Amino acid sequence: MSDPRTTRAWPHPEVVGDLASLRAAAPLTHCITNVVVSNVTANVLLAAGASPAMVHAPEEAGDLAAIAGGLLINLGTVTAEQGEAARVAVAAAVAHGVPWVLDPVAVGPLPMRTALAHELLERRPAVIRANASEVLALAGGTGGRGVDATSGPEAAVDAARGLAERTGAVVAISGPVDLLVTPGGVVEVPGGDGLLTRVTGAGCALGALVASFLAVAPDALRAATAAHAVIAVAAERASGAARGPGSFAVGLLDELSRLETPGR
Amino acid sequence: MSDPRTTRAWPHPEVVGDLASLRAAAPLTHCITNVVVSNVTANVLLAAGASPAMVHAPEEAGDLAAIAGGLLINLGTVTAEQGEAARVAVAAAVAHGVPWVLDPVAVGPLPMRTALAHELLERRPAVIRANASEVLALAGGTGGRGVDATSGPEAAVDAARGLAERTGAVVAISGPVDLLVTPGGVVEVPGGDGLLTRVTGAGCALGALVASFLAVAPDALRAATAAHAVIAVAAERASGAARGPGSFAVGLLDELSRLETPGR
Amino acid sequence: MSDPRTTRAWPHPEVVGDLASLRAAAPLTHCITNVVVSNVTANVLLAAGASPAMVHAPEEAGDLAAIAGGLLINLGTVTAEQGEAARVAVAAAVAHGVPWVLDPVAVGPLPMRTALAHELLERRPAVIRANASEVLALAGGTGGRGVDATSGPEAAVDAARGLAERTGAVVAISGPVDLLVTPGGVVEVPGGDGLLTRVTGAGCALGALVASFLAVAPDALRAATAAHAVIAVAAERASGAARGPGSFAVGLLDELSRLETPGR
Repeated sequence: MSDPRTTRAWPHPEVVGDLASLRAAAPLTHCITNVVVSNVTANVLLAAGASPAMVHAPEEAGDLAAIAGGLLINLGTVTAEQGEAARVAVAAAVAHGVPWVLDPVAVGPLPMRTALAHELLERRPAVIRANASEVLALAGGTGGRGVDATSGPEAAVDAARGLAERTGAVVAISGPVDLLVTPGGVVEVPGGDGLLTRVTGAGCALGALVASFLAVAPDALRAATAAHAVIAVAAERASGAARGPGSFAVGLLDELSRLETPGR
Repeated sequence: MSDPRTTRAWPHPEVVGDLASLRAAAPLTHCITNVVVSNVTANVLLAAGASPAMVHAPEEAGDLAAIAGGLLINLGTVTAEQGEAARVAVAAAVAHGVPWVLDPVAVGPLPMRTALAHELLERRPAVIRANASEVLALAGGTGGRGVDATSGPEAAVDAARGLAERTGAVVAISGPVDLLVTPGGVVEVPGGDGLLTRVTGAGCALGALVASFLAVAPDALRAATAAHAVIAVAAERASGAARGPGSFAVGLLDELSRLETPGR
Repeated sequence: MSDPRTTRAWPHPEVVGDLASLRAAAPLTHCITNVVVSNVTANVLLAAGASPAMVHAPEEAGDLAAIAGGLLINLGTVTAEQGEAARVAVAAAVAHGVPWVLDPVAVGPLPMRTALAHELLERRPAVIRANASEVLALAGGTGGRGVDATSGPEAAVDAARGLAERTGAVVAISGPVDLLVTPGGVVEVPGGDGLLTRVTGAGCALGALVASFLAVAPDALRAATAAHAVIAVAAERASGAARGPGSFAVGLLDELSRLETPGR
C-alpha cells in the first residue's frame, strides 16, 4: 500500500500560520459533546483563540450549525435526544458547507452510538478523530472497552486508510505519535505528553480544536495537523512544570494561550 | 433620558457588608444552568461562601426552588425538558417569594430559548444578567452570534432601561465596565480583567452569584452590585499571578475565598 | 449496641496494597453521576489510577455496567431518563456480579430521587456513600436541605447501622472523620481537610473511587476504607500548599497521582 510518511510539529510555518489565522478569526465552533468534557473543551478552544458554543437541543442545533465555522459531534455521553441533535446539526452543516468532525467515543461495545456513528459517517465528516480501538470498530473490527485505547495507533493505519477512502475524511488516530491518515499517506505528529491520558477530555478537546481549525485552514489535513501539533507542543511545555495531572491541565490552557504567533 | 451614574467597587462598605452577610448565611442557591459551566458555577458560589444546588428535573425543580434563597435560570444549553424545569422552578420561586435571575445566553439567533426567555420575562425576574447582544435581542433588537458579545455595553443601555421599566428587573450588562441599569439610573462596576472572557463560565457563574446575593442583600440592585464587584476584584487580583487562562481560573476561586470581610 | 471502633488511615498496609492493586488493574468504573461533578469525578479516578467511563443513556447503560469493574449511581442531577439508565445499569451489574455504589445526593426533600433511592436500595448496593442528613433520610428520618450536611456523622451512626443491616451495604458517612458503618462495627477514617467541602464534587468523586476500589479490594469494607483513606491523605497534602479552593482542587489531583505505592 502507498503509505508515504511526513512529519509535522510546532513550529512548522503552516501550523504557526494556521494558528495565527485561528486567533484572527476566532471561529464560532459548535460542539455537541459529552457532559464530562464540555467545560475543558470550551476552555481549550478559548485558550487557543476560538469561540466555542455548545447547543444540543434538537430544536436549535441546526440553527447554530448553519452559522458556525466548524462543528464537532462527540458521542461520549450521547442520548437519544442528543443523537437527534447531532443528526440535525450535521444536516444543517452539510447544507451550509460547514465542515464537521466526528469523534466516535467508545464505538464498538455500545450499540446506540455505534449505529449512530455509522449513520453519520455517510454525511461526509471532514475529519474523524479517534483512538485506535475506535478506528478499528468504525472500520468493522472489534471495539475497545469504553473510552480506552487498547491498541496502538499503528495497528489501525490500514483500517484508517480504508475509512478515509470510503468516507473522504482525514482519519486522525491519537497515540504517543498521532497519525493523520488519508488515502495518499500519513502525517505523523509527534510530541505531546503521557499526562494527556491522565486528564479527562484532552482528546475530546482536541477533536473540537480540529473543528475550529477547519474554519480557517485551507484543507482538512492542514486543519487536523494544526490542531494536533498545537496541543502537542502545549502539552510538552505544560508537562515540564507539572507536579501531576491537576497542574498539567492548568498549564495546558496557559501554554495554549502563550503560543507565539506573528504580531502577538 | 434620566441616566444618573454612580460607581461601586470593592471595598465599598455596602459590598463588603453584603459579602459578610452572604458568608454568614451561606444561602442555598438553586441553579438551573448549562452543562458547560455547572462545575465552575458551583465552585464560584462555594468559594464566595454560598451553597449551590443544581436540580433540573421538572419533577423536582419546584420543590427546591421553593426552599432556596435565590434561583438562577441560565439558558446556555437548554433543552425542552430543562425549559420545563425552568418554568416549574420560576413558578415555585414566584409563589414563595424567592427572587430569581435570568441569564438569557445566546437569545436572538436561537428560537427555542428566545421564546422561553420572553415567556419567563413575564414572571418578573429580580435581575437579568446578559451581555449587550443578549440585552438588545431581549429588548427586540437583533441578536448576537452564539454567546459572544458583539456590541459594547454602552450600546445596550437604552434597551436595558426599557427592559427594566417593562419587567421591573435590574438589567446587568457585562463588559469592560459592567453596567447595572434601572429605570432611575446606572451603576457602573469597573475592574475585572480581560481574562474573564478567556475562561468559560465566568459570566454564567456571575449570574449565579447574583442569585446568591439576592438572598441576603436588601434589594436587587445591591445584590447585583455586590456580585459584580466581588467578581471584579477577585479577577483583578487573580490576573496578577496568572500565566494564562488556566491559572487565572484557579486564582479566581482562591481570591474569592480570600476577600476580607469583618471578623474573618 | 455493638459498636467496636477501629481506625484506618494512609499508609496502613491494606490501603497502600489496595491502591497498588487499583493502579495495576486500572478498573473500568462506570459512573452514572451528576453533570456538576462528572469532570472532577473522571479526573479523580484517572489521577488515582482507575479508568472512568460515563454512559447514561438507558439504551447503553446496561451494556457498559455488565463489563465494568464497579458501578456508581449518583443522584445529584437525576432526571427521569437518567433514573431509567440507573435502573438498567444496576440490573445489569447485579446480573453480572459487578459491585455498585449508591450516592443518594439530596434525598429527603426531593421526591423523585428519594423514591428512586429507596427502589435501588432493594438491589443490594455494596456501599452507600452519603452525608449524615442523607443517611438519616434514607433510613426514614428527616432529610437535609439540598446537598448540605446539616447533621454531624455521629448523629447518623445508628441509622447507618440499621441501613447496613437491612441492605447488606457498608454505609459510609462523610464528615470531619468519615465513618464506615457495618452491622458489626465502625471504621473511622480521619484526615482530609475542610477545603474538601469548599470544592464541588469531592464527595461525589469519592463515591466513584469507592466503586473503582470495589473492583480490586477483597471486600466492600476494604474498598470503602481505601477510597476514603486515599482521598483523605491527598487532601491533607494538597491543603498545605493551597491558597484557597482553586489551588486545593488542582493539588488534590496532583497528590492522588503521587501517592507512593510499591514499585512506583
